[in-house]
Amino acid sequence: MSAKLTKRSEDYSKWYNELVVRADLAENSAVRGCMVIKPYGYAIWENMQKALDDMFKETGHENAYFPLLVPKSLFEAEEKNAEGFAKECAVVTHYRLKNDPENKGKLIVDANAKLEEELVIRPTSEAIIWNTFKGWVQSYRDLPLLINQWSNVVRWEMRTRLFLRTAEFLWQEGHTAHTTEAEAVTEATKMQEVYAYFAEKFMAMPVIKGVKTESERFAGALDTYTIEALMQDGKALQAGTSHFLGQNFAEAFDVKFTNKEGKKEHVWATSWGVSTRLIGGLIMTHSDDLGLVLPPKLAPIQVVIVPIHRNDEQLAAITEKVSGIVKSLKSRGVSVKFDARTTHKPGWKFAEYELKGVPLRIAMGTRDLENGTLELARRDTLTKEFVNQEGIEDKIVALLEEIQESLFKKAKDYRDEHITKVDNFKEFKKVIAKKGGFVLAHWDGTEETEDKIKEYTKATIRCIALDAEEEEGVCVFSGKPSSKRVLFAKAY
Amino acid sequence: MSAKLTKRSEDYSKWYNELVVRADLAENSAVRGCMVIKPYGYAIWENMQKALDDMFKETGHENAYFPLLVPKSLFEAEEKNAEGFAKECAVVTHYRLKNDPENKGKLIVDANAKLEEELVIRPTSEAIIWNTFKGWVQSYRDLPLLINQWSNVVRWEMRTRLFLRTAEFLWQEGHTAHTTEAEAVTEATKMQEVYAYFAEKFMAMPVIKGVKTESERFAGALDTYTIEALMQDGKALQAGTSHFLGQNFAEAFDVKFTNKEGKKEHVWATSWGVSTRLIGGLIMTHSDDLGLVLPPKLAPIQVVIVPIHRNDEQLAAITEKVSGIVKSLKSRGVSVKFDARTTHKPGWKFAEYELKGVPLRIAMGTRDLENGTLELARRDTLTKEFVNQEGIEDKIVALLEEIQESLFKKAKDYRDEHITKVDNFKEFKKVIAKKGGFVLAHWDGTEETEDKIKEYTKATIRCIALDAEEEEGVCVFSGKPSSKRVLFAKAY
Repeated sequence: MSAKLTKRSEDYSKWYNELVVRADLAENSAVRGCMVIKPYGYAIWENMQKALDDMFKETGHENAYFPLLVPKSLFEAEEKNAEGFAKECAVVTHYRLKNDPENKGKLIVDANAKLEEELVIRPTSEAIIWNTFKGWVQSYRDLPLLINQWSNVVRWEMRTRLFLRTAEFLWQEGHTAHTTEAEAVTEATKMQEVYAYFAEKFMAMPVIKGVKTESERFAGALDTYTIEALMQDGKALQAGTSHFLGQNFAEAFDVKFTNKEGKKEHVWATSWGVSTRLIGGLIMTHSDDLGLVLPPKLAPIQVVIVPIHRNDEQLAAITEKVSGIVKSLKSRGVSVKFDARTTHKPGWKFAEYELKGVPLRIAMGTRDLENGTLELARRDTLTKEFVNQEGIEDKIVALLEEIQESLFKKAKDYRDEHITKVDNFKEFKKVIAKKGGFVLAHWDGTEETEDKIKEYTKATIRCIALDAEEEEGVCVFSGKPSSKRVLFAKAY
Repeated sequence: MSAKLTKRSEDYSKWYNELVVRADLAENSAVRGCMVIKPYGYAIWENMQKALDDMFKETGHENAYFPLLVPKSLFEAEEKNAEGFAKECAVVTHYRLKNDPENKGKLIVDANAKLEEELVIRPTSEAIIWNTFKGWVQSYRDLPLLINQWSNVVRWEMRTRLFLRTAEFLWQEGHTAHTTEAEAVTEATKMQEVYAYFAEKFMAMPVIKGVKTESERFAGALDTYTIEALMQDGKALQAGTSHFLGQNFAEAFDVKFTNKEGKKEHVWATSWGVSTRLIGGLIMTHSDDLGLVLPPKLAPIQVVIVPIHRNDEQLAAITEKVSGIVKSLKSRGVSVKFDARTTHKPGWKFAEYELKGVPLRIAMGTRDLENGTLELARRDTLTKEFVNQEGIEDKIVALLEEIQESLFKKAKDYRDEHITKVDNFKEFKKVIAKKGGFVLAHWDGTEETEDKIKEYTKATIRCIALDAEEEEGVCVFSGKPSSKRVLFAKAY
């Protein structure tokens, strides 16, 4: 709690890394690229999981669990998917260690315990799941299959950052099978909607719903639907993707169903996922130079109460008063913490809960007891007011709601101000380099142009917005004709 | 749903395997020894997780997440623990695949991507967690650390069985650090209590609380506290363990705290875990030759309603009536399913829900509509009765409670009848071979005798019960003096 955080304006990246560690969200581990998610960070993940899981179940999905390890021969069955992930695969080759005869107390890999076939730690589970679906699907009566899995995956990333890009991460992956193409596409876009709803209503993070260009698609997908958010430094964050997989996996794993006419057909597939990366997005959407700012709907602690006292007697009197407020807030579903530790001073606690982004802070001193008041401080606006203890529960419930909406509005205003229409490449480069944010520009539809633009500006096409209007124009780079604008940005 | 299950009396093991697969709980996967947990099985696990997680949090624990992969040098730091798990370790040696130049479309391990240090997939997380705790603990003010993790682990088992013993399994692992030995022992026994409460109140599975002998302890523990259950075939199941780890891990990873006197001391540790193995125990405690019998508190579906109708009009009338009942049951927290599928006949549905162990089944036909009645069937007793629709919600809530208690009582009666006091080895062998269950016998306290008894009878000491009475006696095998009886059994 001693030194201040690096300012965002000085070094955004450094600010982020410091904040994640000092707010007790996560830290690097002894394993290259893998993080430890600390209790406070994990509590945010649990809140995210709860909200998402409820929505998945409401939309008819069921959870299941599939093996962590994928035999190489299954992994390579769907070629595009395999090719896309092959370079990031952690590979298990042996199943036993033994004592090192040359080093007492040390272990070495037992060469006699080499696996006949190597096992890949899942970077994503299409292969193992579609190999399983084969046994689950015979008739159209078995469809749709609407399955979700909460799990860990490993992708051997070379440049890692806490939450945003880690070799191991936690996520959910939905995998569904359908009788028709139309039904699968509907499922993929429905889950994109679910993700967008979650991002905006729970994370208070505005997102643009769009579809990826071919070069940015998930390996093995025919279409990748995405939600794209904008961070405070003007870089975009892909926050969730939902893939229409066509019949690629059904063909690779020979998953067929008998239709109503008695004919065999390959099933149609989707997959969709969000991960602990969302926590990175949450941090970079709302937080400030003093620390985290958390939207009430995902905050592990929504209200903290700090007593201001000089002696045990005063603390006892405050505690008595506070316990009634705590009880009544809890009964309304508010997550509240009374921090009566005598090992730390109130000022230290104020700074700590500011750093940790607790939306509302109450301070109560002896004078408040006499006056029937308390001090209420908002983390998002940093405003304080003295209010009556009477009716405080209603006020808090309403304020939490207001903070949630206000954070969304603030983030949306920032995002909207950072969508810039651009009609020539000079301006394109200038906006990407100086202002940042999304650039809305015409593109000729070729991968070649996409690559060139990336080469010159580091900006990529984040998506073609679902609500993009038809508009005659010419590609900002090549001058060739284009029928709609797409969204470019530098991205995490 | 066609053929009947193998009878338990014919082949208990075959009955179990068939039941797990046919009740849609789990199945074997393409990966040796790893299972797929199907949605119905996973829903039971989710109910178990919810109940346990609530209890962990009530007792002050927080969830966190630590890496899946453990560098070999960390893994081997605590020697006993490493020695105990070395033979079961899946080892990651490479981090990349590449195209096989000799086989188009196939992948091979990229020899250039060999890890400098091998990574072990966690068989348990003491090593990685204690290496992390080192950074979290400085002063007595940082203690106790009360951490839990929900995760997957891999132990390369040679003989696997769905849920009971699988190469990968899901579990929770608690890891705590304390200032004193007494506090750590209290924590270990407190979590044993939590497990026992969960087993008896939620799983309706009676357990004996005890402590393991030295040879049956967790690798690296000074004491292992256990809960032991009895399955219907007379074999014991270790259902949960809680370990007092002394200062072994603190010493191996140099985790010290400054005490109130300003002196540095090693901290004291515990760890404790239960796994998806519990689902195996749940099945083998209550189920019968017709299928699963699930205690209401863990049943994914507590009540199923099946309409009996000849045409759509009748179905519509029944549906209208049923929807009111469904709504009012849901508002009371009862998990209820209305199965109005017209693709399957009522008789087929009855058999399916019997197989799946749904505690209560309601059948409603057109005559019931006229009479204001319905048919209510209990899965545990297989009894049926006609009851009035009026007040059905109260009746169901009460019945679910009654079934929960009745299942526990039945299991406890069976268990109690299968604890046999034995005073000579001839009788010991006879009871173990014929009657099965727990044998309560004197033992001389030596590992040698334990081994011999195991060699002759396959029975092991499951535990020394916490409430074992002091009693002068002589070891049933060696004739040497003994001061209390211990519990022997053949075990899963």
